[in-house]
Amino acid sequence: MKYPNGLAKVYNNQVNYKNRGMNLEDDLNQTNNYYLVTDRAVIYKKPTPVTIVKVDFKSREDAVIKEAYFKTPSTTDYNGIYNGKYIDFEAKETLNTEYFPLRNIHDHQIEHLRKVLNHGGIAFLIVRFTNLNVTYFLEAKYLLEFLEKNTRKSIPVSYFEDKGYILQERFNPRLDYLRIIDIIYFEKGEFV
Amino acid sequence: MKYPNGLAKVYNNQVNYKNRGMNLEDDLNQTNNYYLVTDRAVIYKKPTPVTIVKVDFKSREDAVIKEAYFKTPSTTDYNGIYNGKYIDFEAKETLNTEYFPLRNIHDHQIEHLRKVLNHGGIAFLIVRFTNLNVTYFLEAKYLLEFLEKNTRKSIPVSYFEDKGYILQERFNPRLDYLRIIDIIYFEKGEFV
Repeated sequence: MKYPNGLAKVYNNQVNYKNRGMNLEDDLNQTNNYYLVTDRAVIYKKPTPVTIVKVDFKSREDAVIKEAYFKTPSTTDYNGIYNGKYIDFEAKETLNTEYFPLRNIHDHQIEHLRKVLNHGGIAFLIVRFTNLNVTYFLEAKYLLEFLEKNTRKSIPVSYFEDKGYILQERFNPRLDYLRIIDIIYFEKGEFV
Repeated sequence: MKYPNGLAKVYNNQVNYKNRGMNLEDDLNQTNNYYLVTDRAVIYKKPTPVTIVKVDFKSREDAVIKEAYFKTPSTTDYNGIYNGKYIDFEAKETLNTEYFPLRNIHDHQIEHLRKVLNHGGIAFLIVRFTNLNVTYFLEAKYLLEFLEKNTRKSIPVSYFEDKGYILQERFNPRLDYLRIIDIIYFEKGEFV
């Protein structure tokens, strides 16, 4: 069992949650829940993939998993439906202030985003540069374009500034990424 | 922590797998993998949702989950994209030979299927009557119609015969449910 990206994520989230309050995952869960209750879209984060080995049945009402292992995810973390279109994205935070290190995204996940695009879905990344206090929306096509044209293992912030869109944090929904999708894919609304 | 549907499922699958060879989940995983490698569609089963409480870091390369609990799923188990459309379904097996007991499906999941339909997705159930050795494809709209018109807590096999489609098991892909979707939603192909 290799060191799982999923684990690092879970671990970081706990740290973030305790030390820095809301993190990107919390913001997106709140946002997706807002979309759900307002019937705007149906988008969920997938559960962390684990292999369950041992389960204790204390009682019919209660079961405890006593041994399980993290699996490397084959897909991105978030998917669902908006406006009749399939939505698929990965969300990452980095403490780096100049680059987004590509080791944060598995090859599986990049291949998955490519497939989603080929099948007519809307695919993108949401990347937060925590120490810059900025969150970007980057269409998957620009991630793939970067990977084709570059051999480097990280994407500079300037590339996000150039090809991406800034996701302003608001009260509710906290990260209104559908507003960006409306403009890019449905010609609804505009950037102010 | 309530008795989780997910647990019963995991437990049954282990039993099925050991005692009866391939079960519905295995068949669907094989089918979805076939669709993936042939680039026909991108459809995955979601991981079983668990709440992770305790993780042992034996080493940087190895981590073991020592305490976790099953969560009741808020969505169906399967979703993805086919032909530009969002696909969403739940798959269940029953040993019952006359009825499909609705307790096998959470209210959350029924509500989820309703939302997916309202947002323009393709939503359905795949139900296997193991002891009848027959597997049905039932559009979500007929599940919802049944629930509106009936107070009973189970759907008779006759309703599946009437409103559903039989999924013939084949070698590869084992359960070609996209063939049914082609006919119903894309007017491609026909029933023989």
